[in-house]
Amino acid sequence: MAKQDKLVEAITAMDQDFAQWYTDVVLKAELIDYSAVKGCMILRPYGYAIWENIMQNLDRMFKKTGHENVAMPMFIPESLLQKEKDHVEGFAPEVAWVTHGGNDKLTEKLCIRPTSETLFCDHYANIIQSWRDLPKLYNQWVSVVRWEKTTRPFLRTTEFYWQEGHTAHATAAEAQEETLRMLETYATFYRDYLAIPVVRGQKTDKEKFAGAVSTYTVEAMMHDGKALQSATSHYFGDGFAKAFGIQFTDKNNTLSYVHQTSWGLSTRSIGAIIMVHGDDNGLVLPPRIAPIQVVLVPIAAHKPGVLEKVRAVADDLGELFRVKLDESDKMPGWKFAEYEMKGVPLRLEIGPRDLENNQCVAVRRDSGEKVTLSLDNLATEVKRLLDEIHTGLYKKAEDSLNSRIYDAKDWATFTDLIANKPGFIRAMWCGDLACELKIKEETTATSRCMPFEHTANGDTCVCCGKPADKLVMWGKAY
Amino acid sequence: MAKQDKLVEAITAMDQDFAQWYTDVVLKAELIDYSAVKGCMILRPYGYAIWENIMQNLDRMFKKTGHENVAMPMFIPESLLQKEKDHVEGFAPEVAWVTHGGNDKLTEKLCIRPTSETLFCDHYANIIQSWRDLPKLYNQWVSVVRWEKTTRPFLRTTEFYWQEGHTAHATAAEAQEETLRMLETYATFYRDYLAIPVVRGQKTDKEKFAGAVSTYTVEAMMHDGKALQSATSHYFGDGFAKAFGIQFTDKNNTLSYVHQTSWGLSTRSIGAIIMVHGDDNGLVLPPRIAPIQVVLVPIAAHKPGVLEKVRAVADDLGELFRVKLDESDKMPGWKFAEYEMKGVPLRLEIGPRDLENNQCVAVRRDSGEKVTLSLDNLATEVKRLLDEIHTGLYKKAEDSLNSRIYDAKDWATFTDLIANKPGFIRAMWCGDLACELKIKEETTATSRCMPFEHTANGDTCVCCGKPADKLVMWGKAY
Repeated sequence: MAKQDKLVEAITAMDQDFAQWYTDVVLKAELIDYSAVKGCMILRPYGYAIWENIMQNLDRMFKKTGHENVAMPMFIPESLLQKEKDHVEGFAPEVAWVTHGGNDKLTEKLCIRPTSETLFCDHYANIIQSWRDLPKLYNQWVSVVRWEKTTRPFLRTTEFYWQEGHTAHATAAEAQEETLRMLETYATFYRDYLAIPVVRGQKTDKEKFAGAVSTYTVEAMMHDGKALQSATSHYFGDGFAKAFGIQFTDKNNTLSYVHQTSWGLSTRSIGAIIMVHGDDNGLVLPPRIAPIQVVLVPIAAHKPGVLEKVRAVADDLGELFRVKLDESDKMPGWKFAEYEMKGVPLRLEIGPRDLENNQCVAVRRDSGEKVTLSLDNLATEVKRLLDEIHTGLYKKAEDSLNSRIYDAKDWATFTDLIANKPGFIRAMWCGDLACELKIKEETTATSRCMPFEHTANGDTCVCCGKPADKLVMWGKAY
Repeated sequence: MAKQDKLVEAITAMDQDFAQWYTDVVLKAELIDYSAVKGCMILRPYGYAIWENIMQNLDRMFKKTGHENVAMPMFIPESLLQKEKDHVEGFAPEVAWVTHGGNDKLTEKLCIRPTSETLFCDHYANIIQSWRDLPKLYNQWVSVVRWEKTTRPFLRTTEFYWQEGHTAHATAAEAQEETLRMLETYATFYRDYLAIPVVRGQKTDKEKFAGAVSTYTVEAMMHDGKALQSATSHYFGDGFAKAFGIQFTDKNNTLSYVHQTSWGLSTRSIGAIIMVHGDDNGLVLPPRIAPIQVVLVPIAAHKPGVLEKVRAVADDLGELFRVKLDESDKMPGWKFAEYEMKGVPLRLEIGPRDLENNQCVAVRRDSGEKVTLSLDNLATEVKRLLDEIHTGLYKKAEDSLNSRIYDAKDWATFTDLIANKPGFIRAMWCGDLACELKIKEETTATSRCMPFEHTANGDTCVCCGKPADKLVMWGKAY
């Protein structure tokens, strides 16, 4: 049984080699497999089930705020990609080009969408005529392709899965409001479903999206103190509208350009889950997106009554939770290790002694804590425990984030922190691109964002010493 | 209001020009828009919402039968596509080729999946080792690309959306059983969700999938009597397993090849809905996949109490059905025409007089029938009407199908029927490819399938007159 042998091998310890630990987890928890195409991953059933739960819950939030799903083609003709100057400069170097269809060379080559602003704009120009057609609040769930040199499962892959929202509004104010509404939606989703606290803020011009007026981001801190850009929301003004001729007749019968936004969250979010909550035993999944919320393991399953009882309990709990009953002939200890690796939030064990006492043993994946629960009000207790696990995971991640945000008021402190204290650094910045580039070159840290909820901690640039009024959150990043 | 003007124009009558009627409906019901890429369509919110309902319900059926979703890359390296000889011959002429990534020419060109057998096989070879790993019952919801010369929305597009199931089994018998189980799942789905009767059967060798041992199909009859291949299920034997080296150790510790299947249903199914149920007023949607099941139109909305009442009714019904309340300032007559065009199964009108009588007027899209309903048990009545509409649509389609299946026992009858009686023809076939080709060449009819539920109507080939034991359902097809 070669496969089970592989499962048994311990994974690399996080503190020994975090990158290797990450690779071990994504493979051993059976989230992905490598594919025949360099840089593309196969999402296996367990990995895809996490993405399905993310899609389902986030989609519900989008629909509540009036957004509608559509599907655009995966191809963008070269001429369409070129319509917005900054956008094509940003994306052309990293797209895949289709040059042949069947046996024929195409008259115009097509890129596979790296993002779909140009397609939405082309469509909007076609369907928007009057103020009655606004706003357009569209979203799509698709995969996109960016030709990356170095790839890692979930964090950076040639093809990745995401949603991309693209909206068109009558006024700049409405579009700006939408940009921040969706950023807030992402922050709420990270908090309420993934149990991950984020830092919200605006990107510097250097880091903003190609073609955007302004880009906003939610940044999360991984176990190793590095940042992961976890979702972004862009305000475009009427730049794309002018490039694509998206005009509408307003109530006074004059022609105006629409104002646009776009926003996206991808399978990177699964990377965040792994690197925020995982431990040396493997994945630790937040209950609300866990494919299996409760696993039931019968103990001494051959003893009379055990299997019958476990099945009855599984049926009951299955009405309310995503439940798996493992009746396989593996030893309980094997099963414990397997579901720990897979990050199942709660394990329930039922054996002959539990039967006698009308109870079961519950083991929490987050803390390892064991409690005995009566079978009489089990569903209520399971609900309470799953909520506690969610809250506990969030609290732990929040403490971890807050305890590793440092202040640097001068260059020596900044470089010392970068070298010795994994985490985020708050430091003032003059706004000069040269300083931003120097910081990146000398420390490998990048500006993560100009955070909303933090106030200035000085008035001179941490890099050049000149007057500065912008607080930036800096950090090494994935 | 140019857009509303366009909506007002009557669509082409079905019997005048069915192809133009079809195009008018897909555009005016706002199911699709044409895109900048030839042959690719944009699924607009209303069109995509139908597809979402199809996905959701079919996915639930798949999961009940133990299938799991995964996501494979969209790319297939040329060498992988070439591993199974028949398969590559069938698909290579119609794939799109990626030759460049970013600024670099690729060392091996990649095709965009036209179907994913080769990717699943490559993955299965990697993850299947023992009988414990079987069966693998995987499915994915993706788009695929086939470089088509002539395209029509939903029916044949360069990129289209579908699910593709790919399973691996320990024995041929299990794989064969799975092939027919999934064919039956499709037939059930067409009956219970799309209200469309289908003819189940096996494809001839000429029409089978490239690389399959046998292909099964469900064929539906459109309003014009032509056939639409509505979903297919393929049995592969161990051909792919041998080409890709997918072996497992069985319980006796000997190495065997797996036996495989694949099966798919696509956005063509939306074409079937349109062409089976639609009429001269536009779409007619089966209630179980209709994005809007009930539309509420207030009459004399400015009169006291009307809007309040309609809103209250919308809220109540919204708990149980997909409901839209149209409060816009368009005249009721406009709204009636719009929702008729969009095929909404049931319209409820509430005006001042209805208020007085605690009632509303319900208008069925399928029959145009008007009934007055008490507001007291409205939800029950709406449920009953939607079920009646579903059953009625199915019955009408079934009668239409059954009344247009003809028998031909000789060539003269066959050619006469093809020329004068749109529909399917049952005729015996000797099994010779030459006859199948001759029939296609001289009549444009193709063998749709060798139907399961029909018995031989003769013993000589309708084409060559030689002894024949195969009953084939013939027809012109989309």
